Amino acid sequence: MLKTLIVGASGYAGAELVAYVNRHPHMTITALTVSAQSNDAGKLISDLHPQLKGIVDLPLQPMSDISEFSQVDVVFLATAHEVSHDLAPQFLAAGCVVFDLSGAFRVNDPAFYDTFYGFTHQHPELLTKAVYGLAEWNHEQIKDAQLIAVPGCYPTAAQLALKPLIAADLLDLNQWPVINATSGVSGAGRKAAIANSFCEVSLQPYGVFHHRHQPEIAVHLDAPVIFTPHLGNFPRGILETITCRLQPGVTAQRVAAVFQDAYGNKPLVRLYDKGVPALKNVVGLPFCDIGFAVQDQHIIVVAAEDNLLKGAAAQAVQCANIRFGFAETQSLI
Amino acid sequence: MLKTLIVGASGYAGAELVAYVNRHPHMTITALTVSAQSNDAGKLISDLHPQLKGIVDLPLQPMSDISEFSQVDVVFLATAHEVSHDLAPQFLAAGCVVFDLSGAFRVNDPAFYDTFYGFTHQHPELLTKAVYGLAEWNHEQIKDAQLIAVPGCYPTAAQLALKPLIAADLLDLNQWPVINATSGVSGAGRKAAIANSFCEVSLQPYGVFHHRHQPEIAVHLDAPVIFTPHLGNFPRGILETITCRLQPGVTAQRVAAVFQDAYGNKPLVRLYDKGVPALKNVVGLPFCDIGFAVQDQHIIVVAAEDNLLKGAAAQAVQCANIRFGFAETQSLI
Amino acid sequence: MLKTLIVGASGYAGAELVAYVNRHPHMTITALTVSAQSNDAGKLISDLHPQLKGIVDLPLQPMSDISEFSQVDVVFLATAHEVSHDLAPQFLAAGCVVFDLSGAFRVNDPAFYDTFYGFTHQHPELLTKAVYGLAEWNHEQIKDAQLIAVPGCYPTAAQLALKPLIAADLLDLNQWPVINATSGVSGAGRKAAIANSFCEVSLQPYGVFHHRHQPEIAVHLDAPVIFTPHLGNFPRGILETITCRLQPGVTAQRVAAVFQDAYGNKPLVRLYDKGVPALKNVVGLPFCDIGFAVQDQHIIVVAAEDNLLKGAAAQAVQCANIRFGFAETQSLI
Amino acid sequence: MLKTLIVGASGYAGAELVAYVNRHPHMTITALTVSAQSNDAGKLISDLHPQLKGIVDLPLQPMSDISEFSQVDVVFLATAHEVSHDLAPQFLAAGCVVFDLSGAFRVNDPAFYDTFYGFTHQHPELLTKAVYGLAEWNHEQIKDAQLIAVPGCYPTAAQLALKPLIAADLLDLNQWPVINATSGVSGAGRKAAIANSFCEVSLQPYGVFHHRHQPEIAVHLDAPVIFTPHLGNFPRGILETITCRLQPGVTAQRVAAVFQDAYGNKPLVRLYDKGVPALKNVVGLPFCDIGFAVQDQHIIVVAAEDNLLKGAAAQAVQCANIRFGFAETQSLI
Repeated sequence: MLKTLIVGASGYAGAELVAYVNRHPHMTITALTVSAQSNDAGKLISDLHPQLKGIVDLPLQPMSDISEFSQVDVVFLATAHEVSHDLAPQFLAAGCVVFDLSGAFRVNDPAFYDTFYGFTHQHPELLTKAVYGLAEWNHEQIKDAQLIAVPGCYPTAAQLALKPLIAADLLDLNQWPVINATSGVSGAGRKAAIANSFCEVSLQPYGVFHHRHQPEIAVHLDAPVIFTPHLGNFPRGILETITCRLQPGVTAQRVAAVFQDAYGNKPLVRLYDKGVPALKNVVGLPFCDIGFAVQDQHIIVVAAEDNLLKGAAAQAVQCANIRFGFAETQSLI
Repeated sequence: MLKTLIVGASGYAGAELVAYVNRHPHMTITALTVSAQSNDAGKLISDLHPQLKGIVDLPLQPMSDISEFSQVDVVFLATAHEVSHDLAPQFLAAGCVVFDLSGAFRVNDPAFYDTFYGFTHQHPELLTKAVYGLAEWNHEQIKDAQLIAVPGCYPTAAQLALKPLIAADLLDLNQWPVINATSGVSGAGRKAAIANSFCEVSLQPYGVFHHRHQPEIAVHLDAPVIFTPHLGNFPRGILETITCRLQPGVTAQRVAAVFQDAYGNKPLVRLYDKGVPALKNVVGLPFCDIGFAVQDQHIIVVAAEDNLLKGAAAQAVQCANIRFGFAETQSLI
Repeated sequence: MLKTLIVGASGYAGAELVAYVNRHPHMTITALTVSAQSNDAGKLISDLHPQLKGIVDLPLQPMSDISEFSQVDVVFLATAHEVSHDLAPQFLAAGCVVFDLSGAFRVNDPAFYDTFYGFTHQHPELLTKAVYGLAEWNHEQIKDAQLIAVPGCYPTAAQLALKPLIAADLLDLNQWPVINATSGVSGAGRKAAIANSFCEVSLQPYGVFHHRHQPEIAVHLDAPVIFTPHLGNFPRGILETITCRLQPGVTAQRVAAVFQDAYGNKPLVRLYDKGVPALKNVVGLPFCDIGFAVQDQHIIVVAAEDNLLKGAAAQAVQCANIRFGFAETQSLI
Repeated sequence: MLKTLIVGASGYAGAELVAYVNRHPHMTITALTVSAQSNDAGKLISDLHPQLKGIVDLPLQPMSDISEFSQVDVVFLATAHEVSHDLAPQFLAAGCVVFDLSGAFRVNDPAFYDTFYGFTHQHPELLTKAVYGLAEWNHEQIKDAQLIAVPGCYPTAAQLALKPLIAADLLDLNQWPVINATSGVSGAGRKAAIANSFCEVSLQPYGVFHHRHQPEIAVHLDAPVIFTPHLGNFPRGILETITCRLQPGVTAQRVAAVFQDAYGNKPLVRLYDKGVPALKNVVGLPFCDIGFAVQDQHIIVVAAEDNLLKGAAAQAVQCANIRFGFAETQSLI
């Protein structure tokens, strides 16, 4: 049994991690923590997330110092980027395997953090060592990693949709892929803010041309993309509609074969033979669903996932399963 | 043209007042104000409430002192209870007619405010003079009032449903009327709070046995009631399902006649010959809709209204129309 | 491994049964069926319910004759009342254990069906043998039953809330308990109807004084109740707010003790020490959550459940677990 | 007072027309009709659309023959395409001015109807005479027209967004504009269908590469476009996010100037100086809101409208106002 610590358990992705780890036959929850400054310190996880009542009623412990938690085997960091940036090195030094759900270690270029995250990275050596946890593509590196940077919610779906097409050179990248994505409100985190309040939420684009998931996607695809995120009027789930120009002569059959090669044996990507996914197909589930259509030398790929699961907690546990040699879908399905 | 000031225009009821007054042929908006401490001071009303863009683009002026606004004829106070409590006397002293949408002057008993609102009332003489603006019942007093206390959202629907039955002595009040009410989230006001955030809202009772609208209803009906408010997962609207025991022998026909007598000529109460209202029938409209069913010496009355309109802004303007001798529905329908 | 047949698998409760049985270590799905007349015959369950894609992709077989399915051990009937009424005797004759999720065998009084269900019951002898599957209360009878009538969605929550209070004689039943209940739209079944269409749904009472769950509740509680169901603007979940008069002198402590006695060791009822449940606490979960408040000789009990789970599929599987000696929560939590 | 007939008043756009015409000072409702086969024939409009109760309580008359309605001045056809196709010539022959909200006369190419609407057009001479009612662009032709083909909901927003850019030659059309659009469920009409039922609706693309609004947009813009409509989980409103490649050197300032030239004096298009519209900004309002951002030789234009208003009923009344010389926004704002 792996002793497991979940840092930032009070958030939405944190609560999903708690549920997954709690039912994992090879992991046990050692502690749940929140920031020492948080009003939630001392409360039960099930006070904040009542769906866990009677299932996991552990307290949220304040964490100012990692020393009392350093004996754990596994740490999930479901925290703000700056917090992960500071904590990850300490847990690595204590010998833990760290799964970071923040953006703090996703891109191996320190300048990226100054530009897009607003802080100067202090641990460039860790950027080199961190493995990007896009589980379907980086399986081998994950097996040996000590620090896994779990991809962002939008980038997970976007990359799963585009990577096979780019790898097989099916796209004409002179025309930049256009990624229109809509996320549920939980993507903004569990916090009080006018913009997240019930009466203010409606479908709208945000961060047009300036969302930090755009460079995360572009860097890992090594391709230019236009990424336009939208806030949707639903609690959870992401749907991405991606429009690209194909190389001349590429047929739907060829595209289908490429997706089949990439994901035919991947348990958490579900390919659609016909049609495209709806958001409800994936909410509450650990899958990324992918469908597409081809016409007039263009392709529209639609990818859907639960932003808190395949876009966060489920992919983190999937990476942990890979890292420790468990079945890849253990506790997820 | 009545020069009109709207205090607290940044809130949801405030924005509805702005729209109504703007299209009123006998009123003109002199100014919109917010608290001098508010982050919204200096913004345009249409920045906060974009539905008003191009219709009303006035700035929200900070108000610390009423002197610069004291030349207005009419003041709508869509503010916190304590703020109304402090401002109303000042505007009255300046000769304005004041329509207060807060709870500061609704009950003619100073002790009520200590118990239910958490402050000691400093103006008991105004409690005597204030007229309770339940428009269908207090028409004559409203015509002569300088200070109109516009009823709370829940109490408006509850009283419109129960007053005719109690006045005609149709109810056996040994059994307390049970008022189950569900309100849209806008009832909590425009503010950042975890409880109002999109992912946290779901149908749930709150303030069980302890909501301050319970005594407001009971005092004005002069009858005991059990009032259980619920938060609903919709932005606006209130639906109340009210169960009472009838006096022996009271028939549905008798009830229908009593309601017809009370509201047959009232333009903002719509009676249902058969069936009961759904919430959507009233959202965005200034009506209170009422239907009922009778069986086994019990009656179930269902009343629906838009909490921001008949439950706030529309009733305030209805009172102003009555006060100044305009058509009762002017600018409302 | 119990060979299991799910009849009416195309509906919302049916799909939940499919998911539960699929992951049950002691049950295996032999077949999924729909009416021979259904347009869904021949489709995959995962075409209708895409959340099951890759998990259960079995076809929906048309069923005109039970003979080809009569070798199964367990039958779940998630069908219309009349269909269950006709099929149950045939499966019983074939030696199957039958869990009926319809209303066809819930009340041991043939006249009930003429009055409330619109058909004359042809199998009164089965009404005597059928066990009402309110799992927390009828555990012993369920262990020996061949035909289990799984309670209706509304009656499950209402009875779980009221039965302990009535059994301990805490209520003054001269005043009828008032049950206000709101259900998600899935309670109306998976079908095309204007009333269920997205733009038509909003909070509204229906079946006032005439819903057939009223007598189901009253008969099994042996007490009069006023039951007012509402349609809510959410897909799933039921919240019931129940107002009763207490016997003189009954305290909140006494009520808490009675609930604790009834459910302290019941894994699928979660009691609240303070506060009352919100709908979101139970959606997607097999629990019924119960909280209450007491004041002025009245009690308000709030019960919440997922209408498709504790109100249907989860309680059916809970009954099956009891019937066959498995852990009561097997595959449910 | 223009005698006005609304055909197809039972639908969602029809009900909006009823409300607008009812409050129009120069129009009076002569009759509301539905198909003679409709179950709604004989009902009151306010039975189907209770928001109109007490405002318009006229019956829905069955229409098999136009003769009894041929004395009207103005006809709004809010009907199926085939029905409009058959009725419009009859009303034109009777001397009426016809505003058709269907697709029957939008494109001056008979073959278009065979391909995209599934019927052979029988009145090609009317296609020549019909004026496309994109009000901001075809003002002069509308003033003289007898038959106005009111644009489709999606095409209205798409063309208002793109026409100024194309007219000013700002776009590099070698890269096809990518229009991602999401519509509320009312866009599918008022009808019983599983796909529109509350529990089935979630964000999803549909008609990928095959929606008939794609050619409507492309023909009237005289430019290729990729149009991907989505169903959104809200009752009404359309938001379109449109990504295009700009000609080299085109700046945001140039784009702003072009939009200002096109719409600076148009009362029903609201331009955003900064940021882009959210859906809620326009729901219930007759506007199309437009905002944009420019970067790296790409532009993202966001257009929002209420699909039933600027996308249907409001634009129809706007066209009528233009046609008869009333203020363009009469009864709309």
